[in-house]
Amino acid sequence: MNFSDEIIEDLSIDCVIFGFKDAQLHVLLVKHGIGPTLGQWALPGSWIKYNESIDEAAERILSSQTSVGNIYLEQFKAFGDLKRFPARRVITIAYYALVNIEKFELHPGPTEADVTWFKIQDTPQMAFDHTVIFEKCLAFLKHKIQHEPIGFNLLPPKFTLLQLLELYEAILGQKLDKSNFRKKFLKMNLLIDTKERQQEVSHRAATLYRFDESVYNKLLESGFTFEI
Amino acid sequence: MNFSDEIIEDLSIDCVIFGFKDAQLHVLLVKHGIGPTLGQWALPGSWIKYNESIDEAAERILSSQTSVGNIYLEQFKAFGDLKRFPARRVITIAYYALVNIEKFELHPGPTEADVTWFKIQDTPQMAFDHTVIFEKCLAFLKHKIQHEPIGFNLLPPKFTLLQLLELYEAILGQKLDKSNFRKKFLKMNLLIDTKERQQEVSHRAATLYRFDESVYNKLLESGFTFEI
Repeated sequence: MNFSDEIIEDLSIDCVIFGFKDAQLHVLLVKHGIGPTLGQWALPGSWIKYNESIDEAAERILSSQTSVGNIYLEQFKAFGDLKRFPARRVITIAYYALVNIEKFELHPGPTEADVTWFKIQDTPQMAFDHTVIFEKCLAFLKHKIQHEPIGFNLLPPKFTLLQLLELYEAILGQKLDKSNFRKKFLKMNLLIDTKERQQEVSHRAATLYRFDESVYNKLLESGFTFEI
Repeated sequence: MNFSDEIIEDLSIDCVIFGFKDAQLHVLLVKHGIGPTLGQWALPGSWIKYNESIDEAAERILSSQTSVGNIYLEQFKAFGDLKRFPARRVITIAYYALVNIEKFELHPGPTEADVTWFKIQDTPQMAFDHTVIFEKCLAFLKHKIQHEPIGFNLLPPKFTLLQLLELYEAILGQKLDKSNFRKKFLKMNLLIDTKERQQEVSHRAATLYRFDESVYNKLLESGFTFEI
């Protein structure tokens, strides 16, 4: 049986890492430093080895190319169209994650010329079919945020309703009605009023909330419908 | 570039086909007729070829092994643990579908000794990690039915609330409260009262409903939450 360190030639991993910062949704891209796509931007991605599971491969590749590590990567979808990769037949398995940008320092790996966060509305042209993978994953995220609680790892432990609203607006790519949003969220019993207020703000200090962890986990399981 | 008829050796497809009949959820299995797993039951599955997309491969494999064709197969998930396949490193992409059993005639393919529907509570031991794939896909379906309308292709065009309830109970694997179920479903505006009643039944003839197609499609898009 071949469980060697060699790569499986027909199969790759690509990672769609969404980041949140300053009320903006970003995506993490690398600039290729070698090979036929030299100088092109792309999703972090590479080949799976015979001696690692696909989940392990995703973690290794992301961390070696970008230094973003120790995060929960979830499988999104395999992309297997005939001509998606120019040189030969390659099927790729896309993974995704949502992270707080400020928690990570970026360092390009040995084969990357650069690594950086792009605002999702300002992404450059990407190599291969990576724009398609990114857009499908973004559509999936927009759907997901309307049915599952998201934000535990994106917001500070105590946050204002405005910060939560901005997270939803950043992912959905549209403005939401503030008072409707507040009403719907408070009705879900997901937020706990910490009885504290924002410090050191020039405007009127807003109430700080935190997620009710048990409701959050229950909603993760059961899902909900948040109509926009 | 290799776009030949040869198989990609590291990569397979497995299909989890759920069928509905007589108020029971079933899964479609084949009995292997050749090779080291001769005589074992398994999900329909085989190798992807260089000259077909993964979606095309899924359709070809399912139809050649079982005669179930012309159905919408959706990608579920890739399974890529190191030792999931005994002889060598193989990553598999699982697809799934939900069909009305009565619409299909089964015929085993040239490498299959048999093909049949098993009630999901009576499945035999399966080859490789197929039991794991089946169980994960069933859990996914249970979650899905609480958030998306399902049943358009499983129920007759006009159906009773009891038939719809039985579909939900079969997938969820538990009894539901009848009057609660009726109330929740009627509130969704998904069902249209056809003003007709069941014919030729010994018990009191129940009202026949049909799905409101535009509400059905809207709910497919937006999702809903059906708490059980």
